[in-house]
Amino acid sequence: MAEHTVKAFDEDITRLRGLIAELGGLAELAISQALEAIVTGDEELAREVVERDAKMDALEAEVDAMAVRVLALRAPMADDLREIIAALKIAGVVERIGDYAKNIAKRTGRIEGRSRFEPLTLLPAMGEVAAEMVHDVLTAYAARDPIVAREVIARDAKVDAFYDSIFRNLVSYMVENPATISSAAQLLFVARNIERIGDHATNVAEMVHFAAVGSYPSDIER
Amino acid sequence: MAEHTVKAFDEDITRLRGLIAELGGLAELAISQALEAIVTGDEELAREVVERDAKMDALEAEVDAMAVRVLALRAPMADDLREIIAALKIAGVVERIGDYAKNIAKRTGRIEGRSRFEPLTLLPAMGEVAAEMVHDVLTAYAARDPIVAREVIARDAKVDAFYDSIFRNLVSYMVENPATISSAAQLLFVARNIERIGDHATNVAEMVHFAAVGSYPSDIER
Repeated sequence: MAEHTVKAFDEDITRLRGLIAELGGLAELAISQALEAIVTGDEELAREVVERDAKMDALEAEVDAMAVRVLALRAPMADDLREIIAALKIAGVVERIGDYAKNIAKRTGRIEGRSRFEPLTLLPAMGEVAAEMVHDVLTAYAARDPIVAREVIARDAKVDAFYDSIFRNLVSYMVENPATISSAAQLLFVARNIERIGDHATNVAEMVHFAAVGSYPSDIER
Repeated sequence: MAEHTVKAFDEDITRLRGLIAELGGLAELAISQALEAIVTGDEELAREVVERDAKMDALEAEVDAMAVRVLALRAPMADDLREIIAALKIAGVVERIGDYAKNIAKRTGRIEGRSRFEPLTLLPAMGEVAAEMVHDVLTAYAARDPIVAREVIARDAKVDAFYDSIFRNLVSYMVENPATISSAAQLLFVARNIERIGDHATNVAEMVHFAAVGSYPSDIER
């Protein structure tokens, strides 16, 4: 490619990466606000999270459209091409993380007697770990840093441990208080959604690792 | 493009579409076998579903690699470019549908006293609707048929109705039989996973519709 074309391509990539950073910021915000809504029962805040999801969908569509334009105009090869494909895939995963946060927020109105549930203190802690994973994996993506990517992958075990603990806790709560089973089931889904957010952050971390060093982290089970 | 290049491109697309059809066939099989394993408690079959998921991951990777190769070699424009991007996205979604089936299969060993659960008759019926959606949306994709795509989207309401009914059923079961709450919670997750499969089939249907007529079906809420 001629030099001016290379520069234009780099600008395109920078713009793409900026859009993905914005998408990631919205995902983090959605996770923490969704859990705040669940814990406090703030349905106004829950509605905000649900409505802002459309902004994430639009950003993903913008990434897609831009990637298609770059592919069409610049017909990049090898590493540059892989970079564009990675951007497409990562945008898709981050948008899905936003969907999980939206699903969490939607349960806000369906939980009764929230002061009695111990998991309501565990869930925000679990959500914080998941939101940090999302934050750090996008830092790893921006810096093309395989070390940070591996740290994110390792941290998924912490999210899984939270999930197991919350699951056991909620089931024993259900056994003791059958009248609240329906609310407890909603909290189970919340825990499950956070666990899936951790999985998706892990998937992105694996893509970042792959893009940086050409292999998947071999000693960590997928 | 010169005529021989056009022919080569068409062959590439045909091969890509063949890989996606194969992926879809495996997803359908995974859904029905996962539910059979859940209903009968057949852990051997469940293991088969889990192991075969690696084959789906490999097929998705093959679609990705082939798409990258086609983009690099042929630098397609406009419709052809969108076709490749659609193949990338659809392969990703179908692979994720396989993940949901794997998640269902993994719960096989965690359900006790299965003969007592009424949802064990509803879940396979629900799974059948979801598997049919996956089958039909890939038919719609192969035939670029927006009518079939719209039918798939409309059918998602049926899956949602199944989910609501199974949720209510399981919660009342939990209330009456607290000792089986843990098993019932597993069945809730199974229902939720099938519901997500329906959502993903709907997403693919929307992509197919978009690719065919250039707009999303407007009268159906996403």
